[in-house]
Amino acid sequence: MPLWQIYHPAGTFDVAASKQALAEDITKIYTAVGLPAFYVVVHFTQQSQGDVFVGGKPKGDKPFIRIVVTHIAVHQPKEDAAYRRVTAKIDNALKPHVADKGYDWEYHVDETERRLWKINGMIPPPWKSEEELQWFRDNQPLPYNGAYL
Amino acid sequence: MPLWQIYHPAGTFDVAASKQALAEDITKIYTAVGLPAFYVVVHFTQQSQGDVFVGGKPKGDKPFIRIVVTHIAVHQPKEDAAYRRVTAKIDNALKPHVADKGYDWEYHVDETERRLWKINGMIPPPWKSEEELQWFRDNQPLPYNGAYL
Amino acid sequence: MPLWQIYHPAGTFDVAASKQALAEDITKIYTAVGLPAFYVVVHFTQQSQGDVFVGGKPKGDKPFIRIVVTHIAVHQPKEDAAYRRVTAKIDNALKPHVADKGYDWEYHVDETERRLWKINGMIPPPWKSEEELQWFRDNQPLPYNGAYL
Repeated sequence: MPLWQIYHPAGTFDVAASKQALAEDITKIYTAVGLPAFYVVVHFTQQSQGDVFVGGKPKGDKPFIRIVVTHIAVHQPKEDAAYRRVTAKIDNALKPHVADKGYDWEYHVDETERRLWKINGMIPPPWKSEEELQWFRDNQPLPYNGAYL
Repeated sequence: MPLWQIYHPAGTFDVAASKQALAEDITKIYTAVGLPAFYVVVHFTQQSQGDVFVGGKPKGDKPFIRIVVTHIAVHQPKEDAAYRRVTAKIDNALKPHVADKGYDWEYHVDETERRLWKINGMIPPPWKSEEELQWFRDNQPLPYNGAYL
Repeated sequence: MPLWQIYHPAGTFDVAASKQALAEDITKIYTAVGLPAFYVVVHFTQQSQGDVFVGGKPKGDKPFIRIVVTHIAVHQPKEDAAYRRVTAKIDNALKPHVADKGYDWEYHVDETERRLWKINGMIPPPWKSEEELQWFRDNQPLPYNGAYL
C-alpha cells in the first residue's frame, strides 16, 4: 500500500543493512496503526550523479535523497493537524537514516484511490476489519469473502 | 495516456516476448474503449533483489511484481461499480502473465488531470471525438483544429 | 517541489550538457514565479529499448521521451485557462531540447498535496511569503519560525 520510492546517489545506502534498517523503520509507521507489514513496499533506486539536477545544476555538495511516497489504504482527513501527524511520523522514521547522516532530502506523499488497488488480485480488506487483522497476523494476503468481488 | 510502470525482479520478464505479450494485453484494455493504441506506454524496470523490501524485509520467496498505473485520458465516475470494472480489466490482463505464473503482485492506479497532459505538444482530442477516431485509425498524433491551443 | 522524471532512450540526452540545458530551462519555469531554484528536481532515467512499449510494440522509429511531472508547491485553479498557462510554459521549455530535435514525446503533470511535502525536515514556507523569498535568495532551505511545526 504505501509505496516508498527512494532515489539516492552512490555513497548512500550502499550497504544492504542500511537499506533494511530504513525499510524497517518505514514499516513500523504503518504496522503501528494496524496495517499488515507486507503492505509496505520500499524501492531503492541509485542514480548517477549526472542524472540528477537540483535548481538546474548537478547536486554537488551533500548527498541528496528524494523520496516519493504513495499512500493508498488510508487517507487523512484533509486537515492541517492530520497532515502534520503523517509528516511527523515520516520525519521520525527518516531521522537516523537520512537527517542524522548529514544528507539533504526531500519527500512528498501522493494519495491515490483505495478502490483502484489490489494485491494478488484481491481487494485489500477495509482498514481495521476482521479480515485485515487476519492479513496482519499472517502477514500475507488471504482469500476472504468478498476479496475477489 | 495510461502509463504502466512495471517493477520486476530478475527471472521475470527476462525474455522480450514475455514483455511484449503483457504490453499487448494491457493495450487491449484501452483500445477496446476506443483509445488509440499509442496512448498506452509500458515501462519495465528490473530491480535488484537488494533494492526491494516488503514489510521491512527482502522479498525472498516468490517473485514480486509491483505495478504503478497512471490514468489520464478517461476517469471513472467515483463509484464502486465503475472502479470494479477498471480493476476487473486489469486483473484480466495480468492473469496469464503474472497470476498464472505464480508470482506475487500488487498494483494501484493513480488518476491525474487530463488538462495537464500533452503528446507531441498537442492536446489529445476529447474522448470519443472525431479527432480521436482519426488518431486511433492512424495510430499516431495528428494536428487538428485546436490541438495547439 | 516540482519533480521532473524524464525517461529517455540511449541516443538522447547522452551528453551532460544536453541534460543540464533542459534542466536549466525547466528551472526557469518555476523561478519566474518566485519559487526557489533548488525546489526544482530533475531526474533523467535512460531506458533500454526492450523495456519500453508503446501501443504494445517496441518503439522503433523515433526516440520517445516520456516525462512525469509532479507539482506540489503551487496548484492551479481548476480552470482551462490556468491549465493552459502551465502546459504552455512546459511546451516552451521542452521546445529546443525535445520538439526541435525531432523526438516524439508525452508528458503529464500530477498535482499532490502541499501539506504532505517537506525539505530537510522543514515545511516549505507559503508561496510568496517573506520566508520563501529568503529561501529563493539563498537558494537553500533555511530554518524559520514554524518550519518544524
